[in-house]
Amino acid sequence: MPPLMKIVILAHDVLLEHYGKTARGVYYYSSHEIIGIVDRKHAGMDASQLLHGRNVKIYHSLKEIKEDYDALLIGSSPIGGKMPEEWRDDIKLALLQGKIVISGLHDFLSEDEEFRKIAERTGAKIWDVRKPPENMRVADGSGRFANTVLVAGTDCAVGKMITAIQLTIEAKKRGINAGFIATGQTGIMIGADAGVVIDRVPGDFMAGVTEDMVKKVSKEKEIIFVEGQGSLSHPAYSGVTLAILHGSYPKKIIIAHDPKRVHHFGYQDFKIPPLKWHIEMYEKLAESVSGGKVVGIAIDGENMSDDEMEKYKDEIENEFNLPAEDVFHNGANRLLNAVLER
Amino acid sequence: MPPLMKIVILAHDVLLEHYGKTARGVYYYSSHEIIGIVDRKHAGMDASQLLHGRNVKIYHSLKEIKEDYDALLIGSSPIGGKMPEEWRDDIKLALLQGKIVISGLHDFLSEDEEFRKIAERTGAKIWDVRKPPENMRVADGSGRFANTVLVAGTDCAVGKMITAIQLTIEAKKRGINAGFIATGQTGIMIGADAGVVIDRVPGDFMAGVTEDMVKKVSKEKEIIFVEGQGSLSHPAYSGVTLAILHGSYPKKIIIAHDPKRVHHFGYQDFKIPPLKWHIEMYEKLAESVSGGKVVGIAIDGENMSDDEMEKYKDEIENEFNLPAEDVFHNGANRLLNAVLER
Repeated sequence: MPPLMKIVILAHDVLLEHYGKTARGVYYYSSHEIIGIVDRKHAGMDASQLLHGRNVKIYHSLKEIKEDYDALLIGSSPIGGKMPEEWRDDIKLALLQGKIVISGLHDFLSEDEEFRKIAERTGAKIWDVRKPPENMRVADGSGRFANTVLVAGTDCAVGKMITAIQLTIEAKKRGINAGFIATGQTGIMIGADAGVVIDRVPGDFMAGVTEDMVKKVSKEKEIIFVEGQGSLSHPAYSGVTLAILHGSYPKKIIIAHDPKRVHHFGYQDFKIPPLKWHIEMYEKLAESVSGGKVVGIAIDGENMSDDEMEKYKDEIENEFNLPAEDVFHNGANRLLNAVLER
Repeated sequence: MPPLMKIVILAHDVLLEHYGKTARGVYYYSSHEIIGIVDRKHAGMDASQLLHGRNVKIYHSLKEIKEDYDALLIGSSPIGGKMPEEWRDDIKLALLQGKIVISGLHDFLSEDEEFRKIAERTGAKIWDVRKPPENMRVADGSGRFANTVLVAGTDCAVGKMITAIQLTIEAKKRGINAGFIATGQTGIMIGADAGVVIDRVPGDFMAGVTEDMVKKVSKEKEIIFVEGQGSLSHPAYSGVTLAILHGSYPKKIIIAHDPKRVHHFGYQDFKIPPLKWHIEMYEKLAESVSGGKVVGIAIDGENMSDDEMEKYKDEIENEFNLPAEDVFHNGANRLLNAVLER
């Protein structure tokens, strides 16, 4: 865990878009002090007007920010993780100022020749959050005794990370010694008890790296909430999903789900199978390794009215006899009950 | 495809063991000329006495081989892929002689300081088969029109690669323009129309790299047989398995299975679920992406008597109405019929 810092979030054009989920996650959940957000699209506004959280001014570029800061945090994760070239000037300025640049992009900024040279000269630091750890290993089954809860999902970007964080916060409020394991860049940036960007880890080691985190955190925590990735039905990311399901050895599973989403996000030719399919698949695949059961549904109600949400929650609870909750608005109280009681 | 070479296979201690499957695969199926096998355990014998294939002398060390050769091929793939230190002398000698060293180990020999320096001096070449390709990408669904058959399995080392090769050979015999895609080091070493060691590819790109191969080969071939990896129930490798299932977009699936194996190989705490479970899981998970169906079972009968094999084949055919075949001994004729007719 890095110490608390004053940070600036770089989020050109994406603050309200799908690919700005890292920026929003850090905005809502991080304990860092946020000095400003750089987004040319919403420059001049305050983030509280758009996102209804803390007050943070939005600037057109980094050079407009006069207040001192410690780190520039890149708050976007585009498909494939490539860096849009129009961000280069802001990143260069932060490096010229000798700051820390925190990036979750697939392209490692520390391997960019221009960035590397500036950092060498000014003493700036580049932290590529996606860089896999050293000494990775194949899973050996030794993590299977940990008390873990996996937050899985029916697609990308349906609230898995937020649900895992909310469950951890709620458990701590009740005096439970709970831990959070991040498997994506946003969770690591917000702050986790352990975190590796699993989709960047070579296939053979994905489950083993997850298992290593579970073993490490379970020495200190009585229950661990693990952020899942992707979906078992996703044409591109399902391998990462299954590796985390097996490598985290969950005893309980929460499924995050957006009822309004018909196709996988960005994959208009691939329909998302029904929630029922996902409940069955997660349980059947867990069966052979950890025997975890689905105990609740976290609903991503971004595009639902309050009435729709209430109706949908009732439907789910009747069909599957599982509690369903809009965690983003109502917190994880009811889902935590399900985790502890089922 | 490399040109045909004279090769020496390095396989100390493992020639008849599980971890010698690369050595045996190359011995049985490669079109390279095999000058000798280095295995201190069986030195002095001929491979034909042990493996019942072509005549190849077995030596105690590389320095005993006086005949000229082009390449030393490392014929083992231990768990995690680390190189046993006792192989160092043989590899050094090949590099000192200016030969090609072909390796499928996780540890890249080209990054070993001592090996690298010798190769620089002598002009020897190190080919690390597991090195991922450059310009990898996330799957986008564009490979879904290819006519692919995936050979999946219930565990590691149950004959997936051999079955895919036998199906390709049998199809070519019938005048069908068939291709073979390798996803592991042995298949690549034997020779494939395209090949990447998928378990070495970062999680996000596993399906995309598979899709790229499928698209490339399908431009030239009317049917493609894809080597699967691991098993959906495997605690360490299931993520790789599912990424290949989705990234290869199979229309038909063959499942390779060893009926005598109770636990996952090397994982005595993890029982392999029944064949029925695997048939259902492969089909249900394929459903959301390519809709592939299981059309036959390839039985690994290594530890079965002829009577047991016949009885088991009948059982499978009755229970699932699927043809079952001992491909290793009987070829892939019946399974190819199933692929073409079902």
